[in-house]
Amino acid sequence: MKQLAVLGSTGSIGRSTLDVVTSRPDAFRVFALAAGRNLDLLLEQVALFRPRIVTVADASAADEITGRLDADIRVLHGIDGLVEVARHPEVDLVVCGVVGALGLHPTWAAVDVGHNVALANKEALVVGGAHLTARARETGSVILPVDSEHNALHQCLRGEAIEEVKKLWLTASGGPFRRRPAETLADVTPEEALRHPTWKMGRKITIDSATLMNKGLEVIEAHWLFGLDADRIEVVVHPTSVVHSMIELVDGSFKAQLGVTDMRHPIQYALTWPQRWASALPPFDPVAAGPLEFERPDLERFPCLALAYRALKDGGAAPAVLNAANEVAVEAFLEGRLGFAGIPRTIEAAVERHGGDAADSLEDVLAADARARATTVRLLKEGVRT
Amino acid sequence: MKQLAVLGSTGSIGRSTLDVVTSRPDAFRVFALAAGRNLDLLLEQVALFRPRIVTVADASAADEITGRLDADIRVLHGIDGLVEVARHPEVDLVVCGVVGALGLHPTWAAVDVGHNVALANKEALVVGGAHLTARARETGSVILPVDSEHNALHQCLRGEAIEEVKKLWLTASGGPFRRRPAETLADVTPEEALRHPTWKMGRKITIDSATLMNKGLEVIEAHWLFGLDADRIEVVVHPTSVVHSMIELVDGSFKAQLGVTDMRHPIQYALTWPQRWASALPPFDPVAAGPLEFERPDLERFPCLALAYRALKDGGAAPAVLNAANEVAVEAFLEGRLGFAGIPRTIEAAVERHGGDAADSLEDVLAADARARATTVRLLKEGVRT
Repeated sequence: MKQLAVLGSTGSIGRSTLDVVTSRPDAFRVFALAAGRNLDLLLEQVALFRPRIVTVADASAADEITGRLDADIRVLHGIDGLVEVARHPEVDLVVCGVVGALGLHPTWAAVDVGHNVALANKEALVVGGAHLTARARETGSVILPVDSEHNALHQCLRGEAIEEVKKLWLTASGGPFRRRPAETLADVTPEEALRHPTWKMGRKITIDSATLMNKGLEVIEAHWLFGLDADRIEVVVHPTSVVHSMIELVDGSFKAQLGVTDMRHPIQYALTWPQRWASALPPFDPVAAGPLEFERPDLERFPCLALAYRALKDGGAAPAVLNAANEVAVEAFLEGRLGFAGIPRTIEAAVERHGGDAADSLEDVLAADARARATTVRLLKEGVRT
Repeated sequence: MKQLAVLGSTGSIGRSTLDVVTSRPDAFRVFALAAGRNLDLLLEQVALFRPRIVTVADASAADEITGRLDADIRVLHGIDGLVEVARHPEVDLVVCGVVGALGLHPTWAAVDVGHNVALANKEALVVGGAHLTARARETGSVILPVDSEHNALHQCLRGEAIEEVKKLWLTASGGPFRRRPAETLADVTPEEALRHPTWKMGRKITIDSATLMNKGLEVIEAHWLFGLDADRIEVVVHPTSVVHSMIELVDGSFKAQLGVTDMRHPIQYALTWPQRWASALPPFDPVAAGPLEFERPDLERFPCLALAYRALKDGGAAPAVLNAANEVAVEAFLEGRLGFAGIPRTIEAAVERHGGDAADSLEDVLAADARARATTVRLLKEGVRT
């Protein structure tokens, strides 16, 4: 019986995780659930999975939910709640589906005590990758990527020596604007950007897919997960998302992982690793999948990808600043305060100011993150780059 | 320094093997060369690679070549020559590129003494798979498939547990007649059948590709190499041969191996296994590879594939008889003595007569092979089924 802490349980990843858990009640026990403010759904999940601990966004949410729960369920809140759950000694695997840089705190906590982490939160690695992976090597914690691309790479790399890998090839759907003329990209509305062609995901990551920043963050994530430098991580546009990613070996061989676009697949992989269990989901049919096509990404029309590569090469605080500025800019875009083309311009300005900040410790990186957020908010208020 | 015995050195596989060897003279030494009757090319190879032993088709070829070689090179001939070379204690790896069921003899010899075999000769496994693989388990011999499809499966299976594999998916180019109407298939000439769309190979295997018997033999080969039953081995037509084959895991994940269509890749893989070495060949570019398409094979138009599945399910001597009848029928087709549509009809008749023969030992199987050949020759002479 694997004891799980499911962080971000009411979000897309969390709900898919609980779906997988439901399919194998003999194998998994939900020890803790962490959600934000969607208390109604959280209460439904508590009734179904009977966790020992529940943690929510803040004290007021905790107060609100406490009266609606049985007395034997502990209620926590805030970053402290996430951290306490993630490092709890009775937990075997932490599923981290928390959105944004907030995910770094519980991920660090889990890695710090040697827990394995099924990580859907890419920002944790983008912001704190150097420190997280160094600590994981010390404690023996295994970070299992849930992102479909990195999960695919993890699968392709089974049985291969990393020094015999020449390149990682991340596939990108290209987002909803792959064919949209450059001059009309400035007019993109949040509604248009939220219509992702292949994957059903949360709002933040869907916008990141439309700007290709999602792929940029994934390049950085792949660097930390697998240890290859930026020039050995390629991005290739593959509109139907059937090939989830590929590796290129030094002998010229490519290995690809393919399947249906359903996050329950990579989640189950991470939950059952190192084993593979039969899936209850409909099987993949390569004949029905239609032609598989690959094209080079257009870095001119999608400057966020180029910004991410540059931040990875610059190193230090640059990736954390890139990510923080992106989070603030995407929120502004979703609220109608920033145009689509303003997202990369805002991020670029923030990285110029703070990319060179200190990054010698997790505290340094978190401080750079905070400064970058404040600067980005100010940039947006000043309206300089919208 | 890995000492190689290259069997079938003047054929397509042999020449590609020597190409790979040339690219890494520090790593490989050619200990023995075995050829048939192409003595001019063999002499060129001897001059270049300086083997200690050379073996040729028969006594007359041996006489002819002996006078043209330095006295310190031993000359052998026939099946005995192949067997002596394959089991020689100074050999580290036997590369078996011999065409047809003849390849079984040296493959058995190598496996019997525990040598690893880079096996391009699929007939050895089709005819003697049960006995070869049982003996390999006893001696610790590793059979490394050179056929691009099985080589791809071998690569995909690295790091996977065979009991977590649901299916093997062999890709097939579909041959030159994939789109040809059924009613015109009877008129196919040897010249047309020898024009393979993607792979440059020997004559026998090229005809087998046109009838899809090649894929049928590969299904049987895959069964013996990886231990999965016929209903867990799928064939899918993939005209551009970019995806060399795929595996389907129990959790719904597919893994594929992709690359350029150059036999030097799988040969190098087998030569350097378990390591992978940098390749001097041009790299694969997924963008340039164009759209990848998959379709179901048409068993009505290509009955050879159905015959092979049936022979594998029937077991016993059926696969050996299928293979023997196919070799005789293809030779007759290449010599203009049998029509294209007569190939499957001839094979079916031979399997009906001898498929149920004893197959308890390698001798049994070889006897069934011999009987099937005689019967097929007679069937063709009688002209019953041309």
